[in-house]
Amino acid sequence: MLIIMDARANQEQIQAVCERICEMGFKAHVIPGADRVAIGITGNKGAIDKEPFLSMSGVIDAVRITKPYKLVSREVKPSDTIVVVKNARGAEVKIGGDELHIMAGPCSVESEAQINEIAHLLKAAGVKILRGGAFKPRTSPYAFQGLKRKGLELLKSAAEQTGLLVVTEVKDAESLPAVAEHSDILQIGARNMQNFSLLEAVARYDKPVLLKRGLAATIEEFLMAAEYIVSNGNPNVMLCERGIRTFETYTRNTLDLSCVPVVQHLSHLPIIVDPSHGVGLWEHVAPMSKAAVACGANGLMIEVHPNPAEALSDGPQSLKPKKFIALLRDLKPIAEAVGKRLNVNALNETKSLELCA
Amino acid sequence: MLIIMDARANQEQIQAVCERICEMGFKAHVIPGADRVAIGITGNKGAIDKEPFLSMSGVIDAVRITKPYKLVSREVKPSDTIVVVKNARGAEVKIGGDELHIMAGPCSVESEAQINEIAHLLKAAGVKILRGGAFKPRTSPYAFQGLKRKGLELLKSAAEQTGLLVVTEVKDAESLPAVAEHSDILQIGARNMQNFSLLEAVARYDKPVLLKRGLAATIEEFLMAAEYIVSNGNPNVMLCERGIRTFETYTRNTLDLSCVPVVQHLSHLPIIVDPSHGVGLWEHVAPMSKAAVACGANGLMIEVHPNPAEALSDGPQSLKPKKFIALLRDLKPIAEAVGKRLNVNALNETKSLELCA
Amino acid sequence: MLIIMDARANQEQIQAVCERICEMGFKAHVIPGADRVAIGITGNKGAIDKEPFLSMSGVIDAVRITKPYKLVSREVKPSDTIVVVKNARGAEVKIGGDELHIMAGPCSVESEAQINEIAHLLKAAGVKILRGGAFKPRTSPYAFQGLKRKGLELLKSAAEQTGLLVVTEVKDAESLPAVAEHSDILQIGARNMQNFSLLEAVARYDKPVLLKRGLAATIEEFLMAAEYIVSNGNPNVMLCERGIRTFETYTRNTLDLSCVPVVQHLSHLPIIVDPSHGVGLWEHVAPMSKAAVACGANGLMIEVHPNPAEALSDGPQSLKPKKFIALLRDLKPIAEAVGKRLNVNALNETKSLELCA
Amino acid sequence: MLIIMDARANQEQIQAVCERICEMGFKAHVIPGADRVAIGITGNKGAIDKEPFLSMSGVIDAVRITKPYKLVSREVKPSDTIVVVKNARGAEVKIGGDELHIMAGPCSVESEAQINEIAHLLKAAGVKILRGGAFKPRTSPYAFQGLKRKGLELLKSAAEQTGLLVVTEVKDAESLPAVAEHSDILQIGARNMQNFSLLEAVARYDKPVLLKRGLAATIEEFLMAAEYIVSNGNPNVMLCERGIRTFETYTRNTLDLSCVPVVQHLSHLPIIVDPSHGVGLWEHVAPMSKAAVACGANGLMIEVHPNPAEALSDGPQSLKPKKFIALLRDLKPIAEAVGKRLNVNALNETKSLELCA
Repeated sequence: MLIIMDARANQEQIQAVCERICEMGFKAHVIPGADRVAIGITGNKGAIDKEPFLSMSGVIDAVRITKPYKLVSREVKPSDTIVVVKNARGAEVKIGGDELHIMAGPCSVESEAQINEIAHLLKAAGVKILRGGAFKPRTSPYAFQGLKRKGLELLKSAAEQTGLLVVTEVKDAESLPAVAEHSDILQIGARNMQNFSLLEAVARYDKPVLLKRGLAATIEEFLMAAEYIVSNGNPNVMLCERGIRTFETYTRNTLDLSCVPVVQHLSHLPIIVDPSHGVGLWEHVAPMSKAAVACGANGLMIEVHPNPAEALSDGPQSLKPKKFIALLRDLKPIAEAVGKRLNVNALNETKSLELCA
Repeated sequence: MLIIMDARANQEQIQAVCERICEMGFKAHVIPGADRVAIGITGNKGAIDKEPFLSMSGVIDAVRITKPYKLVSREVKPSDTIVVVKNARGAEVKIGGDELHIMAGPCSVESEAQINEIAHLLKAAGVKILRGGAFKPRTSPYAFQGLKRKGLELLKSAAEQTGLLVVTEVKDAESLPAVAEHSDILQIGARNMQNFSLLEAVARYDKPVLLKRGLAATIEEFLMAAEYIVSNGNPNVMLCERGIRTFETYTRNTLDLSCVPVVQHLSHLPIIVDPSHGVGLWEHVAPMSKAAVACGANGLMIEVHPNPAEALSDGPQSLKPKKFIALLRDLKPIAEAVGKRLNVNALNETKSLELCA
Repeated sequence: MLIIMDARANQEQIQAVCERICEMGFKAHVIPGADRVAIGITGNKGAIDKEPFLSMSGVIDAVRITKPYKLVSREVKPSDTIVVVKNARGAEVKIGGDELHIMAGPCSVESEAQINEIAHLLKAAGVKILRGGAFKPRTSPYAFQGLKRKGLELLKSAAEQTGLLVVTEVKDAESLPAVAEHSDILQIGARNMQNFSLLEAVARYDKPVLLKRGLAATIEEFLMAAEYIVSNGNPNVMLCERGIRTFETYTRNTLDLSCVPVVQHLSHLPIIVDPSHGVGLWEHVAPMSKAAVACGANGLMIEVHPNPAEALSDGPQSLKPKKFIALLRDLKPIAEAVGKRLNVNALNETKSLELCA
Repeated sequence: MLIIMDARANQEQIQAVCERICEMGFKAHVIPGADRVAIGITGNKGAIDKEPFLSMSGVIDAVRITKPYKLVSREVKPSDTIVVVKNARGAEVKIGGDELHIMAGPCSVESEAQINEIAHLLKAAGVKILRGGAFKPRTSPYAFQGLKRKGLELLKSAAEQTGLLVVTEVKDAESLPAVAEHSDILQIGARNMQNFSLLEAVARYDKPVLLKRGLAATIEEFLMAAEYIVSNGNPNVMLCERGIRTFETYTRNTLDLSCVPVVQHLSHLPIIVDPSHGVGLWEHVAPMSKAAVACGANGLMIEVHPNPAEALSDGPQSLKPKKFIALLRDLKPIAEAVGKRLNVNALNETKSLELCA
């Protein structure tokens, strides 16, 4: 920590800061500068709270040198974390290594027919993880809120039929036990990224967590939210960039792809990209998926719906099956160009047409 | 709802949109424009979901004409809502009318001595509502998380001694019953503004709710969050502007004071301003408090701490008692200039010095 | 300057940074921390460029301790700057002291009748500075671009008839001589805040400059833009907060009123607020004007138009004369409550009605 | 245009809007809705100004249906624009077609040796366009402002020796003739995107323009700035995404890659990506370059410096030659995966080491 004094700070004020540092059991180092004094603090074992200093007279800033996150930091653990997702039925994938994984499916589970149709399509295409919302957080109290428990059951049934793994959102602590029972990855939505009680709650489960970045969360806050989960006992966290809120309104959000290499530089955790929420317009999901893979994402989460115009939520950003399958094919050489494998089944024209009818 | 077609949309695409509107039971009105066609929808009783249209071929946008919120809207209820805050001990204030109310106290309840000292000071100064955090949402899992249940008890005890009313944050559904038992206003923090489960939970209580604006929430989303509470049965909602996140980093947040007249224009609910979180620097809390009153806020929420440099949280933005009392005095003529009353006790010099020692 | 090393930096990397500092003629101070080393630099006379260090191996950050602006800083000149605006016809006002000044008028000068009508109204109301755009920067090449030179002449003529001072925008270096000839304050618009060539050009004139904050400019960049003007020889700079761009779309911009006390804390220059551009909706101009005065602004810039519905630009944010005069009356007690004077002529009902017909 | 009335608007107010529309020579269509009336306007040939309506009583919004840009719109010209860059010495490239082009070089031209060394390296690597700043816009008046005219001469000389084409920034109208004389592409920097006078000035030259997106410019405003250039007579505009300003501070800007497919959807103009300014950190330039190519960019602009730690500007975001050459090699298969060609010379190990020494 470095305490920065006002250019007009007097000797007494400098002395007071030094004394306070000593009282805390640390050592103060006065560094005279061109037009002001700074005071370095050493001897601390962990991060020091800057707030007490900011309230002192003559102090204009306190600069943290130590990063606030520890367990998720690459400085603490240099090697990549590989998150193993598996279930009792023997399905298993490893996220964070050489293989790129796709999580796909509808925004909301709407009916047995809908989720089964998509699950079979994904299975045929080589995808291994099915996404689908059962408890839906919606901006309006009047919008469709998901099939809830029934949705979870449909998801699980579709997964059992196809051997897929399931990821679905945990909306609150109350529904968490049911979600954990029916799914293989616990998703924390963007609006809950700083719902610290929920972060602590999912940390108590022995299931991987997919943590989405908040709309207004800095990368540091994103990593701090992951630190909540890891420090409370669950090391299997995957981060997910899904767009941040900016002044641009043409796209639903601004997909911050630079978050991918930055997170991989600062942390050992895997990072997934959700281009569907990132741009909010299906026409641009394919190019942004390619970009995400090219900059090193460990996986993608993509909304696919057999009939987007009839979808109960997020239709405008959902891909039709045919376009999704074409995208998978297009992603393969890009994944390989960046040293990753993408498992895509070579669907022949007939099979593909049949599935995407 | 108005559906806007691509300039290159063909007759078939226009027809398809019209048919879909008819299928939904509404009426379609084709409006030919200079370089494209728009299609008006009438006959709907409430808001129509725009998403199904956005997925249709040839459609480039769908513009909602009907506002998505109803119950909180001034169009539905033109007269101001007055929120009555009261408790079993006979304390009562009315927020939203001619009288301006101040909610003051420390960021966190830290000890019996601390909260009692502040409560007595506030009482002497004429303030009627005590704020203080017991369950604290913190960005870092390693930061002080509040005294929790013990904090609630200290708050209630301080309130009983002084006759003040209490507002404190509800961090999650689990702690809600305890918070409701010990306080008179249930505060929803900025990070929980779109924690819809928590909004539904507080709606089930017969206590006023103070809803803080999310860091990245538009005014429309802010009103939609209030709509969740009101539509679930609790009409006593006060909104609170506490700063939004922008690119400016000198201040902790950017206090969006234009939110005050805009909310009062769109909604009948009262709006409070929290300049302490808004700017995050105590030197600027006084001028921004004055500005908030001048533009019509129904109340202020201000952090006061007897010794900010020792505060366990938010010290840099807390006012010392002496400065807080000076501020109250300075606010009085501004309140009057905009047609409001502010109850301030004329503390004489001796009394004031004694209290602020 | 403080160089912050990666937690994994080795002795060689630390040594390289120290050597580089010595080569530059400064002194290096190694400060060992809990989990990394920082290196303080002393002996420098002015700000050091951080970039060379950021490119060195093992360095993760370089923190500037010295502020990048000098001449506009309150640390360098503690007393308030009073900008004197005057012209050859004997009109004179002082901005930055006890008196609050209003700059008012239409967005664009549209005709002789229009500008003369407004000028006489302002004169009668006690306002001393007339604003009006002649060279208009417009987002669309197809929008009204101002009356240009003709507009300047009309402005000057209206000012001569009434004894008002004139402020108008300088759009480029080419039109600067004409603008300087016809006006008393040179306004730099928000989009030109970092048009450094134009800043240098206005610095060569012996006229006060009103510098508007850029849409995406931090307060530090705002002060650096002022530093360009002052360091190039023109000390008479007034800053103007006019709203920044954020995710909120209900208002045209987000008026950042905390910029007022922050600028007054960091700099000795006066600061004016333009609520018309800040909110972009005339209904909210009055409350935000009051807020600006309450938090200490040295003046206001307000758009007034006799018939906003016919205005060629910015009609929606322009006040009708009647509302403007009512606002002046309402501002007076607020100005006084914060220790300022506002000169308002007590227009009687008849006179006022006549002027505002 | 659609005028949206307040839910409480009365018949008279609706009538007034209709009359005004008729006065303008257009036709009004009243569309009664669930809780309010909207009024469609038809008969207009081009965009209608919404401002006059917004000032009318009872009106709450006016929604533009017609896009404000014309000439740059893909609706007006469906086929891609290919910008031909060439010079009198016979060099020529086509931007906007199948071939991907790289513009590379230092942030600033610093010396003859520096620019020549880089130019020869680029030539050997197969790059065809040299970038380098001569007139540098800098936030601080005390920072290095470029070699100015001398820099232009060094750039041209390096280009003559190597057969490269040159792109460099035009800082103001004053230096434009010299820039045009020494370079093959006129670059408008981000801070000048809405310097409309400068846009009009470059439109008068028969040279391609590279227009950078402003820090706070929406995609619509970006296209409107291009419309200024095209409508003033210069159709050879290339757009350049270089990051926007958001709340995230870890990266210098937030590179908005979704701008690439969106611009290509809305406009026929080519779009280039500048990842160096976009992220501001050299470690992340390579992944973001790959992402830009993968999502369809027509070219890249990358800062390369033989010794970033000694660079006079932007060192932290500049690639060393060795890393740049490795990046070119890595980009090739990604370009091919999205149907583009990238001309890279296969430098053998010895040659490469020699060049990158």
